[in-house]
Amino acid sequence: MTVEEEIKALGKKARAAAHAMRALDTAAKNAALLAVAEALEAARPAIEAANAEDVAAAKAAGLAPSLVDRLTLTPARFEAMVDGLRTVVALPDPVGETLLERDRPSGIHIRKVREPLGVVAVVFESRPNVFVDTAALCFKTSNAIILRGGKEALRSNVALADAVQKGLARWCGTERPLALLDAIQLVRTTDHEGVRALVRMPEYVDVAIPRGGERLIRAMCEAALVPVLKHYKGVCHVYVDEGADLDMALAILDNAKTQRPGTCNAAECLLVNSRIASAFMPMVEAWAKEKGVTLHEKDVDWGREFLSLDLNVGIVMDVDEAIAHINAYGSHHSDAIVTRDEARAARFLRLVDSAAVYHNASTRFTDGGEFGMGAEIGISTDKLHARGPMGLEELTTYKYVVTGDGALRH
Amino acid sequence: MTVEEEIKALGKKARAAAHAMRALDTAAKNAALLAVAEALEAARPAIEAANAEDVAAAKAAGLAPSLVDRLTLTPARFEAMVDGLRTVVALPDPVGETLLERDRPSGIHIRKVREPLGVVAVVFESRPNVFVDTAALCFKTSNAIILRGGKEALRSNVALADAVQKGLARWCGTERPLALLDAIQLVRTTDHEGVRALVRMPEYVDVAIPRGGERLIRAMCEAALVPVLKHYKGVCHVYVDEGADLDMALAILDNAKTQRPGTCNAAECLLVNSRIASAFMPMVEAWAKEKGVTLHEKDVDWGREFLSLDLNVGIVMDVDEAIAHINAYGSHHSDAIVTRDEARAARFLRLVDSAAVYHNASTRFTDGGEFGMGAEIGISTDKLHARGPMGLEELTTYKYVVTGDGALRH
Repeated sequence: MTVEEEIKALGKKARAAAHAMRALDTAAKNAALLAVAEALEAARPAIEAANAEDVAAAKAAGLAPSLVDRLTLTPARFEAMVDGLRTVVALPDPVGETLLERDRPSGIHIRKVREPLGVVAVVFESRPNVFVDTAALCFKTSNAIILRGGKEALRSNVALADAVQKGLARWCGTERPLALLDAIQLVRTTDHEGVRALVRMPEYVDVAIPRGGERLIRAMCEAALVPVLKHYKGVCHVYVDEGADLDMALAILDNAKTQRPGTCNAAECLLVNSRIASAFMPMVEAWAKEKGVTLHEKDVDWGREFLSLDLNVGIVMDVDEAIAHINAYGSHHSDAIVTRDEARAARFLRLVDSAAVYHNASTRFTDGGEFGMGAEIGISTDKLHARGPMGLEELTTYKYVVTGDGALRH
Repeated sequence: MTVEEEIKALGKKARAAAHAMRALDTAAKNAALLAVAEALEAARPAIEAANAEDVAAAKAAGLAPSLVDRLTLTPARFEAMVDGLRTVVALPDPVGETLLERDRPSGIHIRKVREPLGVVAVVFESRPNVFVDTAALCFKTSNAIILRGGKEALRSNVALADAVQKGLARWCGTERPLALLDAIQLVRTTDHEGVRALVRMPEYVDVAIPRGGERLIRAMCEAALVPVLKHYKGVCHVYVDEGADLDMALAILDNAKTQRPGTCNAAECLLVNSRIASAFMPMVEAWAKEKGVTLHEKDVDWGREFLSLDLNVGIVMDVDEAIAHINAYGSHHSDAIVTRDEARAARFLRLVDSAAVYHNASTRFTDGGEFGMGAEIGISTDKLHARGPMGLEELTTYKYVVTGDGALRH
């Protein structure tokens, strides 16, 4: 069997599983997730042993320490992963929700109803816990999932997939359709060809979600015949307007830059209105010195995502220049204005073309949990289907359910 | 300038126009659309002359009569096109609508607000009126649009584009940003390379919408780096269940098959429950004879989109076999069950994975107008972003507008 045939076989099984999942109610899905949580706990020694082998091999191969860290399933991470399953059980199930309902003069009654997407393909890199986290969110929304992890995490992922299978099998028993066992599948080959095949079968895959770096995302988009929901970069801005509360501005800048500089919603660029620059810039310089932040004032590299304690700094004439700069160099992720002027705030919030726009608040709030979604499968910098943090609702589509009493179109 | 450079230049201008459009309110957009309507009326002789040249050239080149018909801008079609603009003016503007609003314990206030998508690329074939229809819907939703029509309609499209430009210019006057003149642009080259370039510049195009046949759609999807919202095929089913009202079933079948057989929501396949086949099939055969419908009972070709008075016919054991058949061979467009049994109706409506599912009603209702959307830019057989008929709302995305009083993440 070629890699492509192998992937197609997984796809075909996933499609059948997705059809079987449509018949499940919320209680059944929750029972399955709890069975999976128990199976993971039962298999913990085997999973940890497999992970230790992956970690040892990664170290022996000289992989970067940051990568080895992401690969490692520490006891705390294992427990958080299993707790995560139970959190998803407690979340409301969006499937079946009525989004809109209307009667039409033709005699038909229309209901727009939330539906599962069908089959979701998730391609991730070295964190094995992504396997369980994303599988739980997809399962809760009645989607089948095909997961393809990084080569360096294969032993861990196989151990996790085997445990998940045991959990599903126990829950399925002899009463449920066997097709449900294919609701969560792992691609067990790590050829690059496999990723390519996965995103080129629209008959079996409804959407692909990359959970990894820019190179992975670009390669997937280039090959894809299925929609890809993606997060490219987080190049977030803080613009400090004329007449802003400068203490508030500094506190927001500090939070946005230093609270967790490696995250996508951390600020990468400060824009300062020229009329307050002489008052504000000394404050910024003192703060930078204290916090170890490197200011790029002459060696600016607009649009760069540092993910470190580095910050581009620019002076702009007015809010319109700030807006134009952000739309040109930002990544349409999260951008903030600090101002006391309501009209300029409204202009910024309206004209900045980003997933989240902030007035007098830190960009760090762009997060499913902070937005009250309960869970997050990722943050989208796309505009179609989902924008910004994606929770359970973003893993659904809708259909129109139309009823009549012999209604005909004239 | 290469074709690619030419398309990039259009894209760059469209992006600037999209940014300028964000500042427009509904009244300004409506005024622009009315100015365009007047300009089209003023340019009517020039547009009709250009169209007559296209039609003459198409006839001389021996193009199919159906294509020549689609190409022809009859007086009625011209008037419907201009009336269409005025209809769009009267529709409510979805941009700026608050979709969700919540306070969070962190002190931030979140509003999820409808936003324009940005730049929409529409690739269409021979109907010149698509130029004006789609431009109006995109403009009303504050989107810039780049249109690329078929080679055979180029003279007509250039005449339409010139008139639209005049209307926009009069509306812009000296007070509005010149960038707004690029809100509606025509690709004036008809190389295939142009279509390819158009869907490969995510920095300038947010979504592509093909308005044409399967070959065009497949070519666009294969090349695309931007999302494509598409309508592949309409392979719609009518399933007549055990115990159905057979007169109602025949009336629905007749409407779904014969009212306008060339449309995507017309039925292409009848599925009959085996327990009523001996009673129902003679009725179907008599009806087919009377209406000139060719029944394909032995020479079935499952999944075929006839778009003519042809109908595949199959006998199934029960509703589950009907559901499985439709999910396997249909195009996930519109499928109906005729039954008196509420439980089986509910099962069908839930498990059939189509954009619109019907109980005791004709599949022909899948249409923006019939669904009460006011206008339609197309019907999506995709599941992401938009499914089924797409109106103004489906030409929007959303963003999160977050306000605080110095709120920081902890």
